[in-house]
Amino acid sequence: MAYRPKDTHERITHRLKIARGHLDKVIKMMEEDAYCIDVMHQIQAVESGLKGTGNLLLENHLKGCVSDAIKEGDSDKSIEEIMQVFKKKS
Amino acid sequence: MAYRPKDTHERITHRLKIARGHLDKVIKMMEEDAYCIDVMHQIQAVESGLKGTGNLLLENHLKGCVSDAIKEGDSDKSIEEIMQVFKKKS
Amino acid sequence: MAYRPKDTHERITHRLKIARGHLDKVIKMMEEDAYCIDVMHQIQAVESGLKGTGNLLLENHLKGCVSDAIKEGDSDKSIEEIMQVFKKKS
Amino acid sequence: MAYRPKDTHERITHRLKIARGHLDKVIKMMEEDAYCIDVMHQIQAVESGLKGTGNLLLENHLKGCVSDAIKEGDSDKSIEEIMQVFKKKS
Repeated sequence: MAYRPKDTHERITHRLKIARGHLDKVIKMMEEDAYCIDVMHQIQAVESGLKGTGNLLLENHLKGCVSDAIKEGDSDKSIEEIMQVFKKKS
Repeated sequence: MAYRPKDTHERITHRLKIARGHLDKVIKMMEEDAYCIDVMHQIQAVESGLKGTGNLLLENHLKGCVSDAIKEGDSDKSIEEIMQVFKKKS
Repeated sequence: MAYRPKDTHERITHRLKIARGHLDKVIKMMEEDAYCIDVMHQIQAVESGLKGTGNLLLENHLKGCVSDAIKEGDSDKSIEEIMQVFKKKS
Repeated sequence: MAYRPKDTHERITHRLKIARGHLDKVIKMMEEDAYCIDVMHQIQAVESGLKGTGNLLLENHLKGCVSDAIKEGDSDKSIEEIMQVFKKKS
């Protein structure tokens, strides 16, 4: 179960749907034989949008679950989980 | 216009469609109130799939258009385009 | 002022010094006209070492300063600072 | 052996030395117990400088060795080497 304020939740879902719409367009570009470089730029744009969405999720997570865990003196697992996400970044 | 061998073209399109299917599942995870960390991991997995697809496109581009341009003594624009893609990476 | 346990502090400093030694070798490779691709791989290795060191710092920061700030009900600035570091990642 | 125009070679070496000087300062910051977040930002700045230097090397490599290899109809190894560098990026 997640603890996300309603507006944050909707904002994240909305951005994921934008990324999906963007990805649909990239697939269409391929079907229309678009230039490789143009397709690459659009793929990078989708990646960039997903990164921003992941950052929104992380910020919400730090403000919610992680803060709660730390207040309850139970932060080890939370911090480990964040570090796993962080380490996968570049 | 793009110069992509048919099998490479299909492989790239196929991987983009897999990424879209994956993204659909991420949106569904949000609707089912999945844990933030789990959603983040899945978003990173989609990003990772897109990166791999971008690399396939780049490899094809180097082998095709860029090689042709270099052979024709007209490589400046091609190399600049590649550098633009490369600089946006991390 | 930083709050770093002595062993963590030394581990971080040690890794930064290893990165510096590595970078010295890269400079020497250039002076010896090493192959571009080999130099690039070594530069990426230094980057990778620095990333690992940054992650150690972050983990220590989450366990120390951020946890303290959250317990004192004063987490906004801490979380914002972490998000700034995170957003710069790829 | 590398084929780097003299000015490009010097520019790359110069930037590597700047990165080393920067890293020296980061080590000094640690010795002076600087705030974790400040150290992280400086580490990211060194990483960013190294990335820029790597990009210079790549651009030179594409213009020199890779172009030569492609003209001689011997591009497979060159393209594979570039893809290896590229795949390690984020």
